[in-house]
Amino acid sequence: MSKLIGNAIVGQSGGPTAAINATLAGVIRGVLENAHGGSIKTLYGMRNGVEGLLKENIVNLSEFFSDMDNISILEQTPAAALGSCRKKLPKIDEGRETYEKLIEIFQKYDIRYFFYIGGNDSMDTVAKLSEYTKECDYEMRVIGVPKTIDNDLVGTDHTPGFASAAKYIATTMTEIIRDCAVYTTKAVTVVEIMGRDAGWLTASAGIPKAFGGEVPDLIYLPERAFNKDEFFADLKVILEVKPNVVVAVSEGIRFADGTYVCEGFGIASTDVFGHKQLSGTAKALEVAIKNEFGCKVRSIELNLPQRCASHIASKTDIEESVLVGKAAVKAASEGVTRQMMTIERVSTNPYKVDVSHRDVSEIANKVKHVSDEFINERGNSVTDECARYLLPLIQGELDVKYENGIPKHVII
Amino acid sequence: MSKLIGNAIVGQSGGPTAAINATLAGVIRGVLENAHGGSIKTLYGMRNGVEGLLKENIVNLSEFFSDMDNISILEQTPAAALGSCRKKLPKIDEGRETYEKLIEIFQKYDIRYFFYIGGNDSMDTVAKLSEYTKECDYEMRVIGVPKTIDNDLVGTDHTPGFASAAKYIATTMTEIIRDCAVYTTKAVTVVEIMGRDAGWLTASAGIPKAFGGEVPDLIYLPERAFNKDEFFADLKVILEVKPNVVVAVSEGIRFADGTYVCEGFGIASTDVFGHKQLSGTAKALEVAIKNEFGCKVRSIELNLPQRCASHIASKTDIEESVLVGKAAVKAASEGVTRQMMTIERVSTNPYKVDVSHRDVSEIANKVKHVSDEFINERGNSVTDECARYLLPLIQGELDVKYENGIPKHVII
Repeated sequence: MSKLIGNAIVGQSGGPTAAINATLAGVIRGVLENAHGGSIKTLYGMRNGVEGLLKENIVNLSEFFSDMDNISILEQTPAAALGSCRKKLPKIDEGRETYEKLIEIFQKYDIRYFFYIGGNDSMDTVAKLSEYTKECDYEMRVIGVPKTIDNDLVGTDHTPGFASAAKYIATTMTEIIRDCAVYTTKAVTVVEIMGRDAGWLTASAGIPKAFGGEVPDLIYLPERAFNKDEFFADLKVILEVKPNVVVAVSEGIRFADGTYVCEGFGIASTDVFGHKQLSGTAKALEVAIKNEFGCKVRSIELNLPQRCASHIASKTDIEESVLVGKAAVKAASEGVTRQMMTIERVSTNPYKVDVSHRDVSEIANKVKHVSDEFINERGNSVTDECARYLLPLIQGELDVKYENGIPKHVII
Repeated sequence: MSKLIGNAIVGQSGGPTAAINATLAGVIRGVLENAHGGSIKTLYGMRNGVEGLLKENIVNLSEFFSDMDNISILEQTPAAALGSCRKKLPKIDEGRETYEKLIEIFQKYDIRYFFYIGGNDSMDTVAKLSEYTKECDYEMRVIGVPKTIDNDLVGTDHTPGFASAAKYIATTMTEIIRDCAVYTTKAVTVVEIMGRDAGWLTASAGIPKAFGGEVPDLIYLPERAFNKDEFFADLKVILEVKPNVVVAVSEGIRFADGTYVCEGFGIASTDVFGHKQLSGTAKALEVAIKNEFGCKVRSIELNLPQRCASHIASKTDIEESVLVGKAAVKAASEGVTRQMMTIERVSTNPYKVDVSHRDVSEIANKVKHVSDEFINERGNSVTDECARYLLPLIQGELDVKYENGIPKHVII
């Protein structure tokens, strides 16, 4: 493969995570530490992904991060420091002018390396861009670097960003279980966790099973149909033996007929302005449990902190995220293109991974669900095997730098 | 004051905090390290406060914590390790049999020192118990040790437990602001923070003002009447200059006529079971903003993690909490009774406090609100003075011990 000399650009896309900036830091480190053997001159960043790129909203990252201390802070900064977007590139035949505009910008900045950090939609962008540049004979290496808290990308053992969310969830659930245990009156606490189609995040609430720790009494993933009668029956049994029951549910759980629990079961009510309002899944269950058991019920949505609480990021996750970013730079300089970087698990105990890459077309627009053997037969918890599989991912804590009592962040 | 030799008992009451166990650890350390000059033989713990005490649900803490390592872990364990209760003792004239039962138990265990860690209601228990033991001539020293995340107790500069919640809130708000900044489309995020009557916790979202950090664009405390028209006007102005607006509201904000925002403004709707449901304050505002501006709106309730996220406790808070617990043991051994331990601020910069105590009757059943000069004139944020006052409380991080990737807790 001939040496391709030019500049590089990196962008972030899709929902933020606690680790997407660590991957960005990995790309920056890869360029500044010369993982590319001198092929890349300047690293640019596009603001707000391809949406900002099309407006030529570009920042010189080689300059901005000439102070290496800032890169460490970037690794502990949540959300996308370059900004993000939800834009998907059009099909090539339906949007040639978009692609022509992009090529114009690439030529202007002599961009020969394109790194895109994101989820499923971003891999679609990588695939289309690779195709178009090949078609029009513009030499550019295009690499996708995965991130998503949902962990639903195929082709990689897990996705950067997931493990930090998992560590936040496992820790917060443990704290909530402690909090709920203080009173003797019967009470149910329902905790709603992100993940509309894949239950990996909710499954993380069960990680302490791997070492005999406390986990929610019931755990429901979207991979199994939610059965109201079984749920009430199980809850009844538990409430007879202990006063405080904690239930973890994925936001995406559905009844057997496909209706979301938050729709079919919930408060599909009309507000004072006359608009129909849909409650969350936990809130819907709160109402249903109150109605059935008459005991105290509380619902909690873990909400945004799941994906942005970088103060309790998994060290394993952050280190792997940096690693895949760096590896992307190296791979591209060696001629790799149209690929997504992947993490391959070599062994679980001791935990060991390799970084590799796969064709994006194998990955884009597919969803990786929680495997069958990771969910118990009754469908109301995860298996020990699942907990053992997830456990290594949440190991280690960052040595977070604080300033004035608050974690330090870098704003680009 | 004559030396009073006997055993001691300690209990926890009211809502859990991230620091109430640090105060318990302080009492245990005080007894084990002999802060009492040899007066206290054994330290007992009552499970679930006076409720458990009346059932003689008692544990020997001197024995349980003979391993000092466990005490350090107790200091990083959230919620009340002894369990809690919401029970208030009856008026003496109306419940003599309750008090007689208590004296019987005190005599049985030779309890001469009574430490009660709690909020307002707990100080009421301390006052009544002091009165009764004096009346019936049972020699026992009764000390209240404050805790409440709400920081609404009078007579003390601040309450143990508040600062850890404040650090969690300031950190989480900073992370949420980062998360919300990634997209360019107009969006409003409303974050609901605990505190029905006092706005200290919500004010903590404004702490970064003290050092020029980012804070929510609008902050509403229950100390000021919430004006819908002014809110919309302010929001409109901000939405014109930036795409992502973050609003922090106390759960207890009310309109000028006294109606809670979550009642008068919200989704007072009927669920599918025919029951009237009341939404939270943030959810109510979400609906109202959507209706007025038509932009994307999201609501977040910080919920229980505010009070149980001990993984990000304030070191200042935990150290002070231990200190007041230890000081309570010392004070009682020196003859102090019917008092609540207090924290007196000597200076803000450099931050310095003294531990002292005050008569509980000055404290019980009163509420300390956020002072007028801490809220800006428009009533939509806190002042720099407020931020500077709160800043020292959130300084420092615990060296939290993790096991298997999750903070270690001790269960008594």
